[in-house]
Amino acid sequence: MSETGITVVLWPRPMCGVIGVYGPPEASNLAYLGLHALQHRGQESAGIVCTDGDRVRLIREMGRVSETFDATRLARLPGHAAIGHVRYSTTGDSSLKNAQPIAIDYYGGSLALAHNGNLVDADSLRTKLEEDGSIFQTTSDTEVILHLLARSRQQTLPERVAEALAQVRGAYSLAILSPDSLIAVRDPMGVRPMSLGRVKDGWVVSSETCAFSLIEAEFVRDLEPGEMVIIDKSGVRSLRPFATEKAHRCAFEWIYFARPDSNIAGQSVYMAREKMGRRLSIEHSVEADVVIPVPDSGTAAAIGYARESGIPFGQGLMRSHYVGRTFIEPSQQIRNFGVKLKLSPVHEVLAGKRVVVVDDSIVRGTTSRKIIGLIRAAGAKEIHLRISSPPTMGPCHYGIDTPSREELIASSHSTDEIRRFVGADSLGYLSVDGLHSILGGLAGSEPTNGLCDACFTGNYPIPLVPPSRLRQLRLISDEGR
Amino acid sequence: MSETGITVVLWPRPMCGVIGVYGPPEASNLAYLGLHALQHRGQESAGIVCTDGDRVRLIREMGRVSETFDATRLARLPGHAAIGHVRYSTTGDSSLKNAQPIAIDYYGGSLALAHNGNLVDADSLRTKLEEDGSIFQTTSDTEVILHLLARSRQQTLPERVAEALAQVRGAYSLAILSPDSLIAVRDPMGVRPMSLGRVKDGWVVSSETCAFSLIEAEFVRDLEPGEMVIIDKSGVRSLRPFATEKAHRCAFEWIYFARPDSNIAGQSVYMAREKMGRRLSIEHSVEADVVIPVPDSGTAAAIGYARESGIPFGQGLMRSHYVGRTFIEPSQQIRNFGVKLKLSPVHEVLAGKRVVVVDDSIVRGTTSRKIIGLIRAAGAKEIHLRISSPPTMGPCHYGIDTPSREELIASSHSTDEIRRFVGADSLGYLSVDGLHSILGGLAGSEPTNGLCDACFTGNYPIPLVPPSRLRQLRLISDEGR
Amino acid sequence: MSETGITVVLWPRPMCGVIGVYGPPEASNLAYLGLHALQHRGQESAGIVCTDGDRVRLIREMGRVSETFDATRLARLPGHAAIGHVRYSTTGDSSLKNAQPIAIDYYGGSLALAHNGNLVDADSLRTKLEEDGSIFQTTSDTEVILHLLARSRQQTLPERVAEALAQVRGAYSLAILSPDSLIAVRDPMGVRPMSLGRVKDGWVVSSETCAFSLIEAEFVRDLEPGEMVIIDKSGVRSLRPFATEKAHRCAFEWIYFARPDSNIAGQSVYMAREKMGRRLSIEHSVEADVVIPVPDSGTAAAIGYARESGIPFGQGLMRSHYVGRTFIEPSQQIRNFGVKLKLSPVHEVLAGKRVVVVDDSIVRGTTSRKIIGLIRAAGAKEIHLRISSPPTMGPCHYGIDTPSREELIASSHSTDEIRRFVGADSLGYLSVDGLHSILGGLAGSEPTNGLCDACFTGNYPIPLVPPSRLRQLRLISDEGR
Amino acid sequence: MSETGITVVLWPRPMCGVIGVYGPPEASNLAYLGLHALQHRGQESAGIVCTDGDRVRLIREMGRVSETFDATRLARLPGHAAIGHVRYSTTGDSSLKNAQPIAIDYYGGSLALAHNGNLVDADSLRTKLEEDGSIFQTTSDTEVILHLLARSRQQTLPERVAEALAQVRGAYSLAILSPDSLIAVRDPMGVRPMSLGRVKDGWVVSSETCAFSLIEAEFVRDLEPGEMVIIDKSGVRSLRPFATEKAHRCAFEWIYFARPDSNIAGQSVYMAREKMGRRLSIEHSVEADVVIPVPDSGTAAAIGYARESGIPFGQGLMRSHYVGRTFIEPSQQIRNFGVKLKLSPVHEVLAGKRVVVVDDSIVRGTTSRKIIGLIRAAGAKEIHLRISSPPTMGPCHYGIDTPSREELIASSHSTDEIRRFVGADSLGYLSVDGLHSILGGLAGSEPTNGLCDACFTGNYPIPLVPPSRLRQLRLISDEGR
Repeated sequence: MSETGITVVLWPRPMCGVIGVYGPPEASNLAYLGLHALQHRGQESAGIVCTDGDRVRLIREMGRVSETFDATRLARLPGHAAIGHVRYSTTGDSSLKNAQPIAIDYYGGSLALAHNGNLVDADSLRTKLEEDGSIFQTTSDTEVILHLLARSRQQTLPERVAEALAQVRGAYSLAILSPDSLIAVRDPMGVRPMSLGRVKDGWVVSSETCAFSLIEAEFVRDLEPGEMVIIDKSGVRSLRPFATEKAHRCAFEWIYFARPDSNIAGQSVYMAREKMGRRLSIEHSVEADVVIPVPDSGTAAAIGYARESGIPFGQGLMRSHYVGRTFIEPSQQIRNFGVKLKLSPVHEVLAGKRVVVVDDSIVRGTTSRKIIGLIRAAGAKEIHLRISSPPTMGPCHYGIDTPSREELIASSHSTDEIRRFVGADSLGYLSVDGLHSILGGLAGSEPTNGLCDACFTGNYPIPLVPPSRLRQLRLISDEGR
Repeated sequence: MSETGITVVLWPRPMCGVIGVYGPPEASNLAYLGLHALQHRGQESAGIVCTDGDRVRLIREMGRVSETFDATRLARLPGHAAIGHVRYSTTGDSSLKNAQPIAIDYYGGSLALAHNGNLVDADSLRTKLEEDGSIFQTTSDTEVILHLLARSRQQTLPERVAEALAQVRGAYSLAILSPDSLIAVRDPMGVRPMSLGRVKDGWVVSSETCAFSLIEAEFVRDLEPGEMVIIDKSGVRSLRPFATEKAHRCAFEWIYFARPDSNIAGQSVYMAREKMGRRLSIEHSVEADVVIPVPDSGTAAAIGYARESGIPFGQGLMRSHYVGRTFIEPSQQIRNFGVKLKLSPVHEVLAGKRVVVVDDSIVRGTTSRKIIGLIRAAGAKEIHLRISSPPTMGPCHYGIDTPSREELIASSHSTDEIRRFVGADSLGYLSVDGLHSILGGLAGSEPTNGLCDACFTGNYPIPLVPPSRLRQLRLISDEGR
Repeated sequence: MSETGITVVLWPRPMCGVIGVYGPPEASNLAYLGLHALQHRGQESAGIVCTDGDRVRLIREMGRVSETFDATRLARLPGHAAIGHVRYSTTGDSSLKNAQPIAIDYYGGSLALAHNGNLVDADSLRTKLEEDGSIFQTTSDTEVILHLLARSRQQTLPERVAEALAQVRGAYSLAILSPDSLIAVRDPMGVRPMSLGRVKDGWVVSSETCAFSLIEAEFVRDLEPGEMVIIDKSGVRSLRPFATEKAHRCAFEWIYFARPDSNIAGQSVYMAREKMGRRLSIEHSVEADVVIPVPDSGTAAAIGYARESGIPFGQGLMRSHYVGRTFIEPSQQIRNFGVKLKLSPVHEVLAGKRVVVVDDSIVRGTTSRKIIGLIRAAGAKEIHLRISSPPTMGPCHYGIDTPSREELIASSHSTDEIRRFVGADSLGYLSVDGLHSILGGLAGSEPTNGLCDACFTGNYPIPLVPPSRLRQLRLISDEGR
Repeated sequence: MSETGITVVLWPRPMCGVIGVYGPPEASNLAYLGLHALQHRGQESAGIVCTDGDRVRLIREMGRVSETFDATRLARLPGHAAIGHVRYSTTGDSSLKNAQPIAIDYYGGSLALAHNGNLVDADSLRTKLEEDGSIFQTTSDTEVILHLLARSRQQTLPERVAEALAQVRGAYSLAILSPDSLIAVRDPMGVRPMSLGRVKDGWVVSSETCAFSLIEAEFVRDLEPGEMVIIDKSGVRSLRPFATEKAHRCAFEWIYFARPDSNIAGQSVYMAREKMGRRLSIEHSVEADVVIPVPDSGTAAAIGYARESGIPFGQGLMRSHYVGRTFIEPSQQIRNFGVKLKLSPVHEVLAGKRVVVVDDSIVRGTTSRKIIGLIRAAGAKEIHLRISSPPTMGPCHYGIDTPSREELIASSHSTDEIRRFVGADSLGYLSVDGLHSILGGLAGSEPTNGLCDACFTGNYPIPLVPPSRLRQLRLISDEGR
């Protein structure tokens, strides 16, 4: 959880969700519904681009899916193919200008692109492209990909996409729409998820399988790391344009990002979390009266902890789902106001009890401190904080909006120091080994099954590329909203 | 749950929440925050009336609290006293015209009123008032109270309020604001809750105690049935203007309405629900692999059922909290679309399992049928539906927006018929005795501790008054939104 | 012109416009179009009430007609009869609460009322009604009429309207809608205009005849002072419920309010203004090079002045029609900013010239001073200000929003003092005799043809009723917008 | 006037207005006010880009200036330099995507550009740029200029701008903002106007001088055709980067576009129009009773006609300034509805009279036909239509949104055929010679004083460049609004 200002946002913050639909007569409708299912991955902007095989049409705005689209607007997006995007800013500032999908004209015609992930060399590529005469109208790394694609001299769109992506390093799951085809690509390490499904009259790709349930798509399979899938009127075909690399799937998708009813690399998100809780109970057992989650992301792990330990599960904190943006903080008057607006303690569950609290991660430690404070004030006798992931030691460079290393409490404090800071009686993190034992041996047909655990271990699989010169990036800001 | 149209609304639908603040220099700010905590009781409109002892100022609009108010607007509501209201239509159509609080001028000066509840004789009183020359600008029963108050010849405002309320029958918890005072009243049977709290520099009254937590008010006590509390510069005093009647507290406040972290009549809502689940497990035990709630209202009861039965608790259904209003229903394409938009099954929890599903009530049966369908489609081997309240046989006339008796499936079908309709392998309701064993012997200083269980038993404590003549009520509708 | 703040509003400010339609299948559409034609009479709020003979439906909002209504909203206003209203606040503060039409339920059923004018005894009537137990939800005098109507014991609606209006004093042109009929009434002195027209399938009443042109209604006749017209399925009939009084038509309707293409009491507004300009030229002739109007209201008088005097007419001031609300006044930097935003001088018309400037009235004098300053700065050699009405000595109590007597410069300053204040080389007002010579002998079938010239002469035909007690009226304010 | 649909827009439609401010501490405020004065040149979108010497900030939206900006938004645009733009679509579809200014990052840093005019070779340049790997995110020709500028290898920004513009053909007046400087450029033929002014602490450039009056800037001089003005901290300097060409100033700026209080090339727009009317009277004299303008653009010419002919001037048509967008056309019911909503006849001026009607141009003829119909229906005995410009025979390629040649009635019909079509008793156009006699010998320091009269004569000074290949331009459309 972040605690800058009044808006308490769960951390690590969801980043982006991508959907693509090819075939059904009203593709935009399915894309719209799919974006509803992916809304947890980004609430800042929403957009859909569609095509009827001739024109390419775009609607995108700041705000949620239900705010951006209504029946009238969807009716202006006809055609048999569409891609959609929900966004939370990772690279680039948060403004309409950076909303996705981005649609362009280039020598190959019209094109639109929706991107989940982050390029590590966007800055140097941008500098190089600018030196070659390119202009940038956004501060998004996605625009870099489009410039590279437009400069490719390859004959076909899939070849151009491959040539462009061969020049970038980073994490990406992309959906690309042309009047003729829908292309989905996943980076060689498969950091961000993407799956393929089948709907009546066509196909769908999505960042998460939970979108398939809603639109009654049949899950076909995950895209493999480094795979490109081309869907057009002749059907679906798959390319492997990149050299084979060891997979590095983002562990945080299971820990926090993905919806519990999604399935990544053959592994149920819900079951993974429950297993993390079970393992956590074994690694850090304690005598207690009740196990409570920090809702909603800690719930499955808390259930696992309770089951394994035999300690009863309870709801000691209620989360308010009606709280939108709140603008006043009577800070002197009300302690821990921001957290209290979201979370309220159930005194009867906590008073006089030895309480195990399960959360998914600790970032700066300040939100955990507030939560422990709430529970303590409700009369808990002992508070044992359990975290269903290892200590977050470093920032993510692959698409998650994390604070800098300095702000991450675990980068500079021991577990006992953190315990004291947050005010818990004990504190236990899931071990890295524990994490790998759950997520390491993943089922499915994937060639490699590696995890990205860089934020826990410092083993960054894709080296960060420093800016090639001192740049004042992001001079342009759209202050419109 | 209701299933008319695409918007799946939990049933019984929350109705109204009332807050009053007297004393603090920025009373409207606290009222605003309190309304956030009461938002679950009504999302249709929100309003605040304040006074600085001289002018009375009003802002109200259709929409949620966070949509209706911003910093600029709150700044236009200065003063040391305020009342606030969130509304879901019960009597009267849903339009801005019926939003509350209502503010009037009358011979005693300016006045504002916020109302939670429903009068059973509003129609006949309105007819009579109209025959005496009154005009009505809303279709709300609240306006009836204001007319009676303005016609009272009593000397003081508390006396006028008492005289007005002595003429009405029904359920009400009221907050009344004048330039000089804040008055809170609860009907003689205490159907709807209302509590008194203390804040720095003043006092607060609220429909639920959960608002106290957020604004750091100290809980003082519940208003007693039939009590009137007057707060002004000389402090707080209490009157008992009505003849003593047996209390009939709405059982549904514990079963569904109130937030789990609220406390009504000395009874924790969360703990009451957990006890209902435990008792349900005893009354309707079954061999099963997992107990899952219909989120969010069934969660505490499901935890109780799991604890008592020893069957593991799990999250088999995820609720989406990002879904706002959705306007398209591709009905032919996607089965059970409305429910799926809100609820999604976690296959790994359900597939091949014997599942106990705990919900708080069944209204028409159609939503339950869809939910059972979702769980069945996810591969559950057996599905045992458990309801933490008795069969809902009749409508509520005291402030809950229920469908007519004909639409209530339990009014005309046996439990086994309902079971077959919803498609469960077994179905068990909490018994009326079970309900009373949990909520009957309430703690606290209240003179009587009776429950209103009219919707389960047909024992309506306040007889419904038939319209005195054939009226075409509600001719006026505000179509503005 | 007024100059409080940045928004330069032409003065005397338009007040209200009323339209009523009976008969055509889509009556609301015609009412909507008619309100467009009456928009100059009030831009603060707009509303339409319609009936299909059964229900009465209402939409009203702050803002202009084109902002308040769109196709979707109009479609929610079905039926064969409708009344509409545009409003500029006269009595009562400016808030949604005071928007019109007002719709009520009373013992006779549902009813809606739209009002142009002002009651002089609203305050004492309100006090009396409140003492009798009435409640007021607006601060508008219109609500007083509705209370009186609802208290009438007469058998028929026309009789009730007559009985209610017999108790009030003031200026009013009303349109009243019931499920069965449309009633239009004009006060006994006929202060505010109202005309009757014929459309396909029905009838229309309007504050001004310019609405007839737009909707292709055929002008039938003006309502006579004191006349009540009842339109229902049996046709149109006329009543004369009040004692005969001498007519006192508001002279300012011709001088400033009404649209030049309207016709009041058989007199073209445009031609009346042109005649005022001709007469002004005779009364205050001067040698000059060009005659320019203060646009738009001074144009016809300036044309008349130019024709009569033989001095060429020119456009020396351009009015910007794109300026909406502007929020910044860089007051130190830019002199006369408010006026300049609306009016810009055409240097070539003014530089080195002896200029006659024709305006309709002077209120406080400050706007005239700014305008003279603009013209002087553009290089005019001489500036001769001519006003096409007599000096405004007193406020209007019959529906025009004038400042208090103290603020009216002519109430305490001689013409020469005013001339010096505004900075003109000469200043001439139309004489009261001149005004009567043009508007006094009006054509048409009216029994009496008197003018109300109270603001020029102090001869108030309807005595102002002082408040019956010291009241704190308008305690209630709707701060919503 | 155009008559497609219900919205009657005066034709030729205003296109774009540009303003630039350098020096004053709150440059955006002055840009905002200047855009108000230029609002008549485009109401579709509005935008401001500012810089504080470091960051470049942008706000732009669909809508008018007063809708796009408020105090909060302007406060987000700090700094000492700013450019602003109002837009009516000429090239490129009308969507937010094409709103201006456009802001980019390129190798030289950040940059923003606002453009009035139209490139004739945008299509072929775009094709060529795309073939070289450029991507286009708008369909505007302005983006072409930015690509060329970013590809320039010149050392300084002025040199890059010059190199880029040397490659394009067409009409343009540009304002370019970098963190260091404001650059204004006018195309070599000076088709579109642009002037330089002085404000306290700095400088301003504007499409029209009317913006100078409002912000109290002192007019310095027009930019000369082909001139580039660079304003930075060292002051103002001027470059002449292009080969000298004969000036071709757009005659329509005087005839219709510009505000009457503007001054172009030393010639007052108002006086030019009055002279056109005088000349028209000489060329096409007629015996008549009254001369009326089609407001507002025909007014000055009508005054000139009246003065020269001695026939009295009158207002026979009132224009409604309150009409916004209207969405219903009860087409069967109301004849000439669209025109009537904007224009209403004053019967007393027209009935029984011989009327001279002065308008600025005839495009398709259908609006003129409706206007003549209105006047005829008001009882005019004779109607003599006079047009203060020559017959419009061909479309404009230099920035005016004209219909195609086929739609221009004068391209295929004789004056007498047009007269019969519109229903006038006589019809006279200003001669081309007459036009040149008024606008040909312009005062001022300009090297050449030529006019562009291409739409009247077919002498297009800048040849149109046909698309280099069959393109499906504008595949991308932003359907958001």
